[in-house]
Formats: sequence, structure tokens, C-alpha cells
Amino acid sequence: MKTPTPWFNAHHSPIGAFSTFTLGLPGARGGFGLERGGPADEDVYVAVEDREGGGFHALPFFGPATDDAARYDAEAAAQAQGEAEADVPAFRPFATADVTRDFDVARDTWRAADLEFTVHTQVVPVPDPAEARDETAAAALRDALVPAVWAELTIDNRGGARPRRGFFGFAGKDPYTFMRTWTGEGFVAAGQGGQVAIFAGAEPGVAPAQGFTAAKLLAPAHPANARFGLGPVAGIVVTAAPGERRTVRFALAFFRGGVVTTGLPTRYLYTRFFADIDAVGRHALGMADRVTAASAAPAALAGAATLGPERAFQLAHAIRSYYGSSELLETLEGEPFWVVNEGEYRMMNTFDLTVDHLFFELRLNPWAVRNQLDWFMRRYRYTDEVVCPKTKARFPGGVSFTHDMGVANSFSPPGRSAYELTGLHGCFSHMTHEQLVNFTLCAGAYLHEVGDAAWAQQVAATLADCQASLLARDDPEPARRNGIMGYDSSRCDGGSEITTYDSLDASLGQARNNLYLAVKSWAAYLALEAFWKLRAEPALAHEAAAQAVRAAQSILGAAVAGPALPAVLFEGVDSAIIPAVEGLVFPWRFGRRDVFAGDSVHARLVARLREHLVHVLDPRNGLCRFADGGWKLSSTSNNSWLSKIYLCQAVARDILDLRDAAEEARADAAHVAWLLHPKNAYFAWSDQMLSGIACGSKYYPRGVTAILWLG
Amino acid sequence: MKTPTPWFNAHHSPIGAFSTFTLGLPGARGGFGLERGGPADEDVYVAVEDREGGGFHALPFFGPATDDAARYDAEAAAQAQGEAEADVPAFRPFATADVTRDFDVARDTWRAADLEFTVHTQVVPVPDPAEARDETAAAALRDALVPAVWAELTIDNRGGARPRRGFFGFAGKDPYTFMRTWTGEGFVAAGQGGQVAIFAGAEPGVAPAQGFTAAKLLAPAHPANARFGLGPVAGIVVTAAPGERRTVRFALAFFRGGVVTTGLPTRYLYTRFFADIDAVGRHALGMADRVTAASAAPAALAGAATLGPERAFQLAHAIRSYYGSSELLETLEGEPFWVVNEGEYRMMNTFDLTVDHLFFELRLNPWAVRNQLDWFMRRYRYTDEVVCPKTKARFPGGVSFTHDMGVANSFSPPGRSAYELTGLHGCFSHMTHEQLVNFTLCAGAYLHEVGDAAWAQQVAATLADCQASLLARDDPEPARRNGIMGYDSSRCDGGSEITTYDSLDASLGQARNNLYLAVKSWAAYLALEAFWKLRAEPALAHEAAAQAVRAAQSILGAAVAGPALPAVLFEGVDSAIIPAVEGLVFPWRFGRRDVFAGDSVHARLVARLREHLVHVLDPRNGLCRFADGGWKLSSTSNNSWLSKIYLCQAVARDILDLRDAAEEARADAAHVAWLLHPKNAYFAWSDQMLSGIACGSKYYPRGVTAILWLG
Repeated sequence: MKTPTPWFNAHHSPIGAFSTFTLGLPGARGGFGLERGGPADEDVYVAVEDREGGGFHALPFFGPATDDAARYDAEAAAQAQGEAEADVPAFRPFATADVTRDFDVARDTWRAADLEFTVHTQVVPVPDPAEARDETAAAALRDALVPAVWAELTIDNRGGARPRRGFFGFAGKDPYTFMRTWTGEGFVAAGQGGQVAIFAGAEPGVAPAQGFTAAKLLAPAHPANARFGLGPVAGIVVTAAPGERRTVRFALAFFRGGVVTTGLPTRYLYTRFFADIDAVGRHALGMADRVTAASAAPAALAGAATLGPERAFQLAHAIRSYYGSSELLETLEGEPFWVVNEGEYRMMNTFDLTVDHLFFELRLNPWAVRNQLDWFMRRYRYTDEVVCPKTKARFPGGVSFTHDMGVANSFSPPGRSAYELTGLHGCFSHMTHEQLVNFTLCAGAYLHEVGDAAWAQQVAATLADCQASLLARDDPEPARRNGIMGYDSSRCDGGSEITTYDSLDASLGQARNNLYLAVKSWAAYLALEAFWKLRAEPALAHEAAAQAVRAAQSILGAAVAGPALPAVLFEGVDSAIIPAVEGLVFPWRFGRRDVFAGDSVHARLVARLREHLVHVLDPRNGLCRFADGGWKLSSTSNNSWLSKIYLCQAVARDILDLRDAAEEARADAAHVAWLLHPKNAYFAWSDQMLSGIACGSKYYPRGVTAILWLG
Repeated sequence: MKTPTPWFNAHHSPIGAFSTFTLGLPGARGGFGLERGGPADEDVYVAVEDREGGGFHALPFFGPATDDAARYDAEAAAQAQGEAEADVPAFRPFATADVTRDFDVARDTWRAADLEFTVHTQVVPVPDPAEARDETAAAALRDALVPAVWAELTIDNRGGARPRRGFFGFAGKDPYTFMRTWTGEGFVAAGQGGQVAIFAGAEPGVAPAQGFTAAKLLAPAHPANARFGLGPVAGIVVTAAPGERRTVRFALAFFRGGVVTTGLPTRYLYTRFFADIDAVGRHALGMADRVTAASAAPAALAGAATLGPERAFQLAHAIRSYYGSSELLETLEGEPFWVVNEGEYRMMNTFDLTVDHLFFELRLNPWAVRNQLDWFMRRYRYTDEVVCPKTKARFPGGVSFTHDMGVANSFSPPGRSAYELTGLHGCFSHMTHEQLVNFTLCAGAYLHEVGDAAWAQQVAATLADCQASLLARDDPEPARRNGIMGYDSSRCDGGSEITTYDSLDASLGQARNNLYLAVKSWAAYLALEAFWKLRAEPALAHEAAAQAVRAAQSILGAAVAGPALPAVLFEGVDSAIIPAVEGLVFPWRFGRRDVFAGDSVHARLVARLREHLVHVLDPRNGLCRFADGGWKLSSTSNNSWLSKIYLCQAVARDILDLRDAAEEARADAAHVAWLLHPKNAYFAWSDQMLSGIACGSKYYPRGVTAILWLG
């Protein structure tokens, strides 16, 4: 698709390799990133020789050339790579106005003059690695996980009378290793260390090159100097014959061998299949035909073509950022461990993101949901007490799960997150109730989608614990329960719990009596009820159902003056919030559409939430819209999160049947404009937007909630 | 020793781990570096609580605090780590005037107020890993190679009425992993990823801590928050009781597992002994007693105490930089591979450095010399043709060796260096003759020192090839030979060979007829003569002896007007160069003192070189001295190299008996001032000084030529 501007960074990532070839913003602002919280800021060169010769023009993804030659030869004029300065060709970026971009979820193409450059990525389901026991399944797993993306460089020399060269290369920023070029059986390569490389098939007119600058390596005075080991720039030079329109394919490979995590030692699962980067490159080159054909319209995203361009853009951009944060590890015993890193923060499997990634994973990789829940059960569950907010008295609590599993490949100790601190009322406090609800919702959703009887059996005891824990957090005294969280975790120890909306004001940040969390809790009880009914546990089902009814009644009964529900129930916090409706997605999607019909208390809750949403979204009410038409999650905060907007947009349209095409278009255009704002475009897809400017959660995976738009 | 200023970076490095804890310059200018070409620029915190409480003072090795809290909580005031800003203690650097430093080769101590901080390192021989077959030998090898350095933090609270805390920590700059704290059997630890860490024994009043800033982690409102997983600063907090002067010991560990090189896959040899960084930390803590006792005066450097403070400083500083560049690898088949990386350039085993490191290695690790020569023979030798500089006619050449073996853990292909290019006359041209001479000299020196009969047998054929190659490069026509290089390698293909002095002017840069290289070639022939005599190969011995005589005669016969010999013989380049005398060190040290006695042509050459040196060094002649008394290697270049100055100083004093104490003191003081110049102090020990300012070869290993001062 054509985007309002071609100048924005996007991820081009393998699946599960925590790596990215980020590209799209002029300057040294992208490049090959492994395990990073932001772009690698490398110079990337995609160049073609000018028709008339004598110089090169390149896509503008590089900064001013610095010439390392002076570091070696301080006194003399640098005679680097054998070039008199006069012999070094001009090397200039194309004028930005001369470059066009065609962007999609698995294909990203730039065109300028006689150059065309496309990066292809895979959007495919990953087979369950625990099931990949026979050869065919293992091959499918290997191909889904191959830590590579692909590129094609086309030089249109049909009008040319002499050979013209093109160049695709980069200047790596890894602090530990250096650029290098090499050849192997059937391939040529340029890269840095053993971790990133560009591979091309060995064929005439395709050769590795390395030099002090891109310009110098394109004009070595002596052919023997084309691969200068001290050059910080390396890549592949291709030559198109006169009259030829030549396309050369590349595999862009990533590799990290051995143990890559601390706390719990694990390695990348792809190392089952690939011993080193050469193995990745060779295999990826062999897949190039298939991948470049499939990238036009990935089968896994059937239906995406029906989205308008604004939504299609946002979905594509979000999926790319998700893959850039995805990481499939395995323990030294060979147990798979699916991790999604939290964008710029790199927290691992932040549970309140997991519950948002759920919709995407259930479509592509349902086993990944189960895998994460298994690890939460096994290593990141804990039991606390609960504390009365008024008396500070403590009562038995129950099970919950940590906010995350660590940060940047450092697993936190069992039962502990990297994030949660004690004694706080805001950001970095505990999210005990939120994560408990998230576990319940994820488990319920997975089981509804997959019907995994064996896992249902495994998780039953934990879900019973979850239900008991929810009840304890409502009120230790059964008679006082209202279906809504009323007690904080003892882990807060003087502080109070927060929700995932940690950086918003109290309208969404406080967990206790929070409307957003109340509706999600209601959804969790509905999921539990369904679970116990299926397992023929009527007492537990009845208990869950009763809690769901209580929750609905409590929300309906909250004394309010107007159509908007208060953000925090019973406490006089009357901010208006869009995420009140977030929880509706779970019963709608995962087997409880019964509650939307008829005149039950649940149906009345849904209707009440619809009334709420209509009111707060109406621009005339000045509550939950920015001036540009973008959605404002809370009337009292300018910090709005695109991932949650996407989710609530799906709820509004598909569940609550709010379809105002003009308003929708206006909002979508605003959200696209946010992402493409010059201040934001560096970070690919970002979540937290403060009046449209990314203020946190940059380079972030969470936007895959947009998958809900596909219905 | 006391240094003219305490403010300079120095390496504190394990042996063979290509890693360093660099410290000494105010600001974030040092820290934990692995495999880097320069300091890691990390904040390092060494702090003590003020006597009156309420704040901390630290050694000034950190920059202005940046608080990551805002990245997480954009809208709200950052309530990071639970601290109201008022509760965060003041954290200030000591005034620079209040800090003293006591610097030595294996011990480096800073003192300020009630704080004392010492870093201890090992200066010990490394046993031959090929011989470390029994348990005792393996244990000695393990202890020499343990990738760790040690530190002691002392808090003098003898005058204190309340407990006082100290802190040793840092903010890591690895782009891939994050800071973390952890505990294990008998230890507590703080570090980054699995690659660097500070370990301390688990004991009361010693605890890991992590936070957004050093100040915040020292005052968590809640003890449970002391280890905040999202904090970019981590370290160890120690507490001294009232009245106590407490010293806590740390092991500073480095670790890189798995294959670390490309081109030829190898791993660190220390991974034979240590499976991960915990194993390193535990073992190093157990060695702390021994290491901290030995660091006062390493037995391996007996005699260093007799050097004056200027020379002792330079030797100590140089050895530290050498160790920081040292790297002991092993192939996947378990074959050891000793590598010295070339400082900021990180070229591996640059041969013209190896020949300078020779003197240090023969004292500590003679096997390392043999190991490097073995790898040069096995993987980095080549055979060329030679080219007549006038007619460009080609003739059979002979064997030589590459300039280096690759760069930054990327081994270059067999027979190729990273550095050498074709078609050049200056920097980056080939060093074929220089490296051929260097191989011969290193082999001769090693055999003289060690008397390794088995290896003599192995190397004999290669040394015969070397001799033949030297002859071919003198002149393919025997009758025209003069003992001096006259032909360039065909690898230059239109260019011409250079010497190690690649960045100086033609006085030292051109190889053909170069005086410096002529004297080294003479020394090589003398070594070969001795070798063949021992092996009872009279024909070869005679041939070598004849070439040595020819070389001496040629130099003596070079038509010159005054006492200074011309830098390039027979070509009218009349620069005056100090390194004319460099080659004298080989026959003097390695078994050919016979040539210094009597009235042979050799003795006359020595006398002539003495006359030359006296003349060029005399400040009144305005040739090879800077205004500050420092030595100027070439009269026509301001680029002077300390490593070579040290070597020539040893030649002047020990061999040529030039002992002018006042002039020596003046020169030594100048050289110290160069190293400590504010523009140079960042790079620890550097080599190339352009009028006293480091202009290249920074953070460099080559200064261990100073070991020659020990006689």
C-alpha cells in the first residue's frame, strides 16, 4: 500500500529470533538489530550506479561518511584502499522526492530511478515445537523459524549501454566484532561477526566487497583490494549487463548460538536446525522463491485485503513490530519457551501484553499461548495475602502471576518480576489482580479455541486456585462480595495495586474498583463458569456465575449522574474511559455470546457499556476524543495507547455495532498520522501516545490487537 | 607509585580473556569491556556514605545521572523505585583534589576521605596449555587464566557512630542484555547479562542492589525494592558497623561462552575450566587472598623495583594494556591459539607487533611465541614472486607471512591478512619482507631461550625456506646480493612493500633498502647462522653468515657525509632514524654477542650504529629529539612510537652503553607526560604520538618492549 509518507522505520523480522532488519527512516537510523530495545542506528546502503556512470545514488538510509583511514595513517594523507580521492566515485542519496515506497505486512518496496529494493518477510504459523517430532513437522518448524528475512535488489539497465553496478551493504554497530566478507559453498556473504550477514547465491556479477566507505569499496584501484578486511562497510556488489533488468536475491541472516539467557539458561530454538550463520544463510537462500512469492498476500492473514488502507497499514506495521520482539527459546532440556519482549523495555512476557497478544497468537500460534501460560504456572506464579484498603488487616489471599518474567534475556527469579516494586501506588506497583484475570482469560480463550482436553486437565487445579484467589480479592467475607476487586495484594505492603495502564492517571491506573478491570473480571468469571460447566463441576461453575452476576450488578448499580460510567467505581473518580468496554471481547470471542442476548443482567451490562461508549466517544461531549479525531482512552489523561484503541475499536464495531464510517475514518487517519509523525517514525510501531507523540512503549509489539479487525 | 596526575585510564585485565576493567579518568570513560577497541564508557560507582549521613561521595568515574523512570511513566512525575525525590540521598563525586592514586602493575589504589578502593590483577606466567595434562598443571593454567580481576573496597568507619554504607557498581553498556543482580552458593552478584559481573562473598552487610540511579538504589523506601530489575545501575552495597574499618573483596568476572570467532571457529580456552560466569566468580573469590597478596610485587617482574618511577610507570601501564589485548583461544579440537589483539584496531597477531611482544613473552610465556609461530606457519604463510623495482620483471620469490591473522575475532582466510592491500606504496601495502624477518627473529629468539629441540626439528624446513626467501628478496641473482632487501613482493603488484612504520614518512615506511629493516635483516641472518650451526648444516650456516657480512658491509659502505646513516640506503633519503639500532637487540639477547666483540665487520657495524645514534639523539643536532626531550624516531616525522622508543632506549643503554642519566630522565619524563596528557589519558597506554599527542595505535599492547629495561 502507499503510505502518507514513505519515511518511517519498520521492522523486517524473522519469527522468534528477537531480531530485526529495521529500515525506512533517512539517516543511519535502522539496520541489523539483535536483542535490542531500539533501532541499531547502522548505515544501510542500497545503491545503483548512475546511468551515465561515475557515481552512485542510494536510498537515503545512511549518514555522512566517516573515513576510518585516518585512524591508521595519521600523518600522511589517507591513501585508503588504494584510492586517490579523485578515483572515488560520488556516492549520494536519492532526493527524497524521487523515492516511493510500497509497504505491506510481508513486503516492503522502495523504488527510485532504475533501482528497486524489496524486503520480504514471513507471516506464517509456527508449528508447535513440542509436536514437531516427525521430519515433515520439523522441516515446517525449521522453515517458519529460520532466522532470516529476504531482499531483492533490481537494477533496470535496459536502457544502459554499459554494465551498471548495484550495492547492498551496511556498516555494523556491534561493539564486539567487525565487518567481514566471505564465501562458502554456493554463496557469497558480507556481515558482522557470526551474528548478522547478507547472503547471495554465488553467480557471475555478484561479489562481496568491503572498504572504508561505500564509495571506496565500489572503486578499488586493484581488484584484489575489493575485500579490505579493515573496512567498516561491507556488502554485496551486483552487476547488470547492458540491456539487462537484473534482480538479485539476498538472505539477511541473524544468528546467536549457545546459551543466551541468564537466570534460566536457554538457547534459541532455531539452533536445533542451524549450527551457525552460514547454515542459516544457505537454507534461507533456498527458501527465497517460496518466501518472495508468498509475501504478496500471506495466507495466514486472509481477509486483510478487506481492511481500508489506514487499518491495513496499522495492522501490518504492528505485526512487524511484534515479530521483532518475538523470541522462541528452549531450555537445555529442550523445552520450548516462547517469549515476547516488551519493545523498548524488553521485559519478557509481560502478562498484561500477553493477554492482548492473545488474539494474534490464537490465530497463528495457539500453542504459544499455552506455552506462556505453562511457564507462568511453573515459574512465575506466587501466593500472597490480601489487605483491606481501610483497616490494613490481612487475610489469606491466593494465587497470582508476576507482571513479567524478566528483562532482556535475563530471567527474573521464580515468582518475581523485573517490574514490580513494593510500597507504591502508581507505576511499578504490583499488578496481582490484573495478571490473575489475564491468566484466567488467556486460559479460557485458549481452551475455547483449541479444545485441548489434555491441557484442560492440567490447568484445572490452577483455574480453581485462580477462582478462589479472585474471590479472596473481591472480599474475604463472602457476604460482602460484589464481583469486583476490593483488596490489594500483601506484596504491595502499604501501596496499592495498579493495572496495565500504569502510566495513566488514576482513572485507569488504580486496580481496586477499577471499571476496566471490573469488566475484565466479569469476563474472567464468565470464562470460569464455562470451563467448570464443561468439566461438570457445578459448584465451581455456580460460584463463578454468581460472581459474574455480582460484578454486572455492581457496575450497573454504581451511582452515576449521566450516561458515562465512572472510571473508578464507588470512589467518586468520574473520569470517563474507553477501556470500560475492553473486557467484552472475551465472552464475545470465546464462547459466551449467550450473555449478549436476551435481558439478563449481563445483556443489560453490555447495553450499559454501549451507552457509555457512545457517550464518551461523541466528540461533542469532549471526553474521549482528541481534536484530530483520535481516541483518547481516558478523559483525564492525554496518554492514549494504540493497542488498546485497536481492541476497543473492534469491540465498538463488531460487538456493540457502533459503525459511523466517517468518524471511524477520521479516527483511523488520526492514528496513522500519530505513527507516522516525524517524532515517532523512528520507533516503528509504538503504543503510548501523549497527544499523538510517542512517549513510551516504543518499538513495541502490542499493536497486534489490530488482528481483531479481521473479525 | 605516585603518578604526576591520578587521572588516567588504565587497564585492569585478566590474562588471555580479551577483556578489561578500565578505570581512571573522570566521567563515564571506563568500565567493563570485552573484545572492544576502546573503553566501554560505562558509569562506575565507588562510593561511601558521608560521615554525617544523608549523602554519598564517590570516585568521579561516572557522568551526570540520567533517570530511566521517565521512559516508563511519561505523564506522571516519576515515582521511581518508590522514592519521593526528597528521600533520595545526595550522590556526589569527591573533589578531584581530594583523591589520590597509587598505581602499579598489578595494584591500583584510590583513596579519598574514608574510602579506599584497590583493583588487583595478576601478572603471572601462563603454563603451556599443551602441556597442562596433569591435575596440578591444569589447576595452574586455570588460575592464571581465570577471566577475572579483583577489587577491595575499604570503608573507614572507625570514627563513626552509626553504620556507614559503601557501594561498588556500574551501569553496563552492552546493547544486548540488561543489568541484573543475583545470588548463588556463597556469593552475591551484580552484573550485565552473562558476560560481566561483580561478585562478593555472601556475608552480613554485603548485598546486591539495583535501581534507576546509584542514589536511588542506596535509599529504597522498602527493603524489597533494593533489587529493582529495571534499574540500569547495579552493584554491591556494603555496610561498615560503627567503629569498624571494613574491607570487602570483590571478584570482577568476565565470560564469553561458545564459539567466539569466525573464519576459524574457536572458543576461549578458559571455558575448559568455567562453564559460566558464576563459575568464574566463585573460583576468583576463592583466589582473592592469594592474588591480593601477590599483587604488591609480582614475582614474574622481579627487578622492576629498580627502575625509576618514570620507567616503572610506563612498564606497568604497558603490561596492563597488553593483557587487555591478550586472548587465549582454542579450536574446537582443543588446540590452543594465543592471540594478541592490536589495541584500538583489534587486528589479531599483527606480526610486526609479535616481534616486539617477543621480549615480554619469552620472559613470561615462551610457549605463546611458539604457538603464534606455529599458526603463522600453518595458516598464515604464503609464497610469492619478487619484482624488480626498476624493470618490474618477476622472479621466483619465496615464503613469507601475513601482516596479521584477521581482526576482532574474525580470522582472515588462510594466507591473507585483514590489513594488506595491493598496488600501494604506503599504509596498507604488504609487509612481506618485514614479516619474513620477524618470523626468523622470533623463531631464533625462542629457540635460543627455550632450547626446544622438538620444535627446532619442526621449524627447520621453514627456516630454510625463510633463508631462501630472504635471498630471493635481496636479489634473485646471487652475484648482486648485498644482504639488503632489494625486490618487492609480487603481492604489491605495482606497489611496493612497507615496514611496520606504516604511518611514518618514507624514512621508515619504505621497506626496500630501509636502514631499519636492513639491520633487522642482518640480525635475522645472524640468527639463521646460529641455528644452522647448531643443527650441523654448514652450507646453510655459511650462506647465512655471508649474507650477514654483506648486510653489514652494505650499511657501512653507504655513502654518507656525516655521522648519521641515511634512513633509506642508496636512494638519497637522508632522514635520520633512531630505529636503525633496533635490530641490535636480537643478536645481543639471543646468543650472538660474539658479533659485538673484536674488530669484525659486525663489530664495526655496531660501532657505526652507535656513532649514528649518538649523533641523532644529541639535541644540539636537531634530529631525533622533540623539544621536551622525548625521542623522535625519524628526523622527518613528528609521529613517534613509544614501543619502539622503549626498545631503542634499551639498546642504547644496555648494548651501546649510552648512559646520560640527565638526558635519560628528561626523555623519560617527556614520555610519561605524553601518556598522561589529557588528550591521551583516555586510551590507557597508546603508541603513536604525534608531537606527544596520541594519533593512532591507541589502547595498545605494544609497549611491553619496556620489559627490556629490566635487562
